[in-house]
Amino acid sequence: MQAPPTGKSTSEVRVALAGLGTVGKAVAQLLQEESERYREELGVGVHVGCIFDRSFRGKDLSWLGNGAAVTDSLAEFMSFPADVVVEVLGGSHPAETIIRESLGQGRAVVTANKLLMARCGADLLALAAEHHASLGFEAAVAGGIPIIRALNNSLVADRIERVRGILNGTCNFILTEMASSGREFRDVLSQAQTLGYAERDPSLDVSGRDACDKLVILSALCFDLWVPAERVPIRGITDVRPIDFLYAQKLNTTIKLLGVAERRGEGLFLRVSPFLVDDLLPLSQVNDVLNAVEVTGARLGPTVFSGQGAGGAPTAVSVVADVLNAALHPGPQRLKAPARLNRHPAELSFDGEEYPFYIRFFVKDRPGIIAALSRILADRNININSVLQEKWPDPTNLPFIVTVESTPYAAMQEAVAEMSRLEFNCVPPLFVPMLVA
Amino acid sequence: MQAPPTGKSTSEVRVALAGLGTVGKAVAQLLQEESERYREELGVGVHVGCIFDRSFRGKDLSWLGNGAAVTDSLAEFMSFPADVVVEVLGGSHPAETIIRESLGQGRAVVTANKLLMARCGADLLALAAEHHASLGFEAAVAGGIPIIRALNNSLVADRIERVRGILNGTCNFILTEMASSGREFRDVLSQAQTLGYAERDPSLDVSGRDACDKLVILSALCFDLWVPAERVPIRGITDVRPIDFLYAQKLNTTIKLLGVAERRGEGLFLRVSPFLVDDLLPLSQVNDVLNAVEVTGARLGPTVFSGQGAGGAPTAVSVVADVLNAALHPGPQRLKAPARLNRHPAELSFDGEEYPFYIRFFVKDRPGIIAALSRILADRNININSVLQEKWPDPTNLPFIVTVESTPYAAMQEAVAEMSRLEFNCVPPLFVPMLVA
Repeated sequence: MQAPPTGKSTSEVRVALAGLGTVGKAVAQLLQEESERYREELGVGVHVGCIFDRSFRGKDLSWLGNGAAVTDSLAEFMSFPADVVVEVLGGSHPAETIIRESLGQGRAVVTANKLLMARCGADLLALAAEHHASLGFEAAVAGGIPIIRALNNSLVADRIERVRGILNGTCNFILTEMASSGREFRDVLSQAQTLGYAERDPSLDVSGRDACDKLVILSALCFDLWVPAERVPIRGITDVRPIDFLYAQKLNTTIKLLGVAERRGEGLFLRVSPFLVDDLLPLSQVNDVLNAVEVTGARLGPTVFSGQGAGGAPTAVSVVADVLNAALHPGPQRLKAPARLNRHPAELSFDGEEYPFYIRFFVKDRPGIIAALSRILADRNININSVLQEKWPDPTNLPFIVTVESTPYAAMQEAVAEMSRLEFNCVPPLFVPMLVA
Repeated sequence: MQAPPTGKSTSEVRVALAGLGTVGKAVAQLLQEESERYREELGVGVHVGCIFDRSFRGKDLSWLGNGAAVTDSLAEFMSFPADVVVEVLGGSHPAETIIRESLGQGRAVVTANKLLMARCGADLLALAAEHHASLGFEAAVAGGIPIIRALNNSLVADRIERVRGILNGTCNFILTEMASSGREFRDVLSQAQTLGYAERDPSLDVSGRDACDKLVILSALCFDLWVPAERVPIRGITDVRPIDFLYAQKLNTTIKLLGVAERRGEGLFLRVSPFLVDDLLPLSQVNDVLNAVEVTGARLGPTVFSGQGAGGAPTAVSVVADVLNAALHPGPQRLKAPARLNRHPAELSFDGEEYPFYIRFFVKDRPGIIAALSRILADRNININSVLQEKWPDPTNLPFIVTVESTPYAAMQEAVAEMSRLEFNCVPPLFVPMLVA
């Protein structure tokens, strides 16, 4: 048994923190609450020396100890001699300037900015490597789940074939609640807003755009390619209805909004969409605001990481972990050389996956509907797997579903477009890809 | 868009590999198959230069390329000028010598040896730190799941309160199969042996001792304390019967062998035992040979990592990830100072957790049985929650179960010991702690 270390040298790290929103405040508080433990256990003293916030004058900062200058001047913030710059402002401006200038000065940067990382992660990582600076972005994807370090350092030994996950807690909460309560989307969205799980303007979340940014980052780390977010096909959850959860359950599945990136030969398929996920698959069990990421390697098979995907405290843990790693292991964290991340996506295919599909119709009931739909499917060599129709009181707005066997996504989309033009439809049919176990 | 790097320097790493069993062979093959990719993507060339195996002369090594000397001489192996020494022999001797001497020479070491890490991990990490050498042991716990790096680098920012998991794939396969088939333990064990999921001598797995070694390592990384494995209370799965799965299902639970380490104040509780796990908890969904680890932080809440816990290829991915990290980021990987891991466990309490319990009896039916059992429970202030008895053909060997509300483990153990002395028992009662959602 050794004696505890005495006279051990402790390194001191000055942090400049940009942003005092939910995450910024949680970061500052975490550093206050745990600074003694970090000093004792990790041998590193972390001090927030300067905080940038445009609107700090309106905020109660009594919880903030002395020692940190708070400023709304970007120039003042940038002149602070920080060892690590933490950017938790979100958005493009001035976040991008802060990150680029700090990396250019060789400072370590930690960011939670998924938008920025998705859009210019390749550039920023190259800039970091050029200046031998660390760029941490664990908090940009899946909040408190340490998926970025896993991809950067642990899973590089295998050849990754697919990454997919539940990447938006707001959508997962809404879908979980719709599944258990049978209520309508709008109704559950209001509840989520009341609970603080959804923004007043929820469009970024419910459209799938937020999940798309995170998927772009995950995909880049797995496949060395930063796909422009605007090239990723996206569908949100606003068209999902209570009846879909009833039928999903009959099919032993659960509806989840997933981001999926999959490599097949030279093709790379990215997609954000609701999926019917087989109840036997781990992702089907991830509920409420939780996030989960499943990474499938050629040798590892699927490895699943799940936990808190958002919220101030869990996100702050990821931010501060990046700060501590930057302080104790200077230089780029990621094993792969960043220049590899710059390959041009022009020659890659982004479409062409095949799935079984669920298609839900609301129709004015009359003879010949199934015949009309079947003909459209048969014309495209799409095999019907099942037709389900439960008892329903209203024959003028009758729901039923068709499931089809594995079909190219594009063919399904075309078939549904043609079917939606048939006059018996009350609303456009909803088609959802299925993940089978 | 940047051009790909040209003339980029590539570091060359010489590996000495001790052990050519399932894992050793998989490591050598992975390094052969992926060496071009590692060179291209990571800028590192990894060569196995020397292999130690006592019985290599009886093995077919035609798959092994040229360039690696294979020897059964430990002296010859140790004299090879390796940058990274990989130990996948298992057991104590000569694994411990190889690791200690290599670290003493300042060489990076990667090991999959859970026995050795559980027994002398504190010493080995201190030795590594003293010589500024890297000691990687990702493969020692949960095979391909990158839980060690997560604990060492990602989760340090939070205060960990509990770690628990399904740490033995053999037991999980047997329990999953018993649950779905209704067959007896012995019967399923034979099947597992035929499939290669269980050793010919399965005692290390089914007794819980293998899970215990892994739990000791996880607990040490979470709580800075290497608890001697012999101080951890262990129960295996040999007493679990098909009837227990029937009742577990009625209680909306699943039977899993778990290792649990939990901090409460100054108490640290470690235990390996079968548990009835609520179907709503993520660990209940982890089936077959898969492993899973759940880490609960004060701010993060529970984060779950699941995947392949054993097998040559997944374990090799973890070993090689450690090799690549050691090659590219020399020096200790773990953020915490190793001396912290040497605190003396004498003053800590290792018992005292409370759980609801499931107790299963087989009795010769007669009046007064419940009364006798209730009195023993009441004497210890243990509250009965339910008594369940399904129809059963044989009144001379009648199963029924009692569940009790949250009770200190020691009190439950005493009560069951007293109940087992009652003459109406056909076999000693089985009591199993329950995890509720």
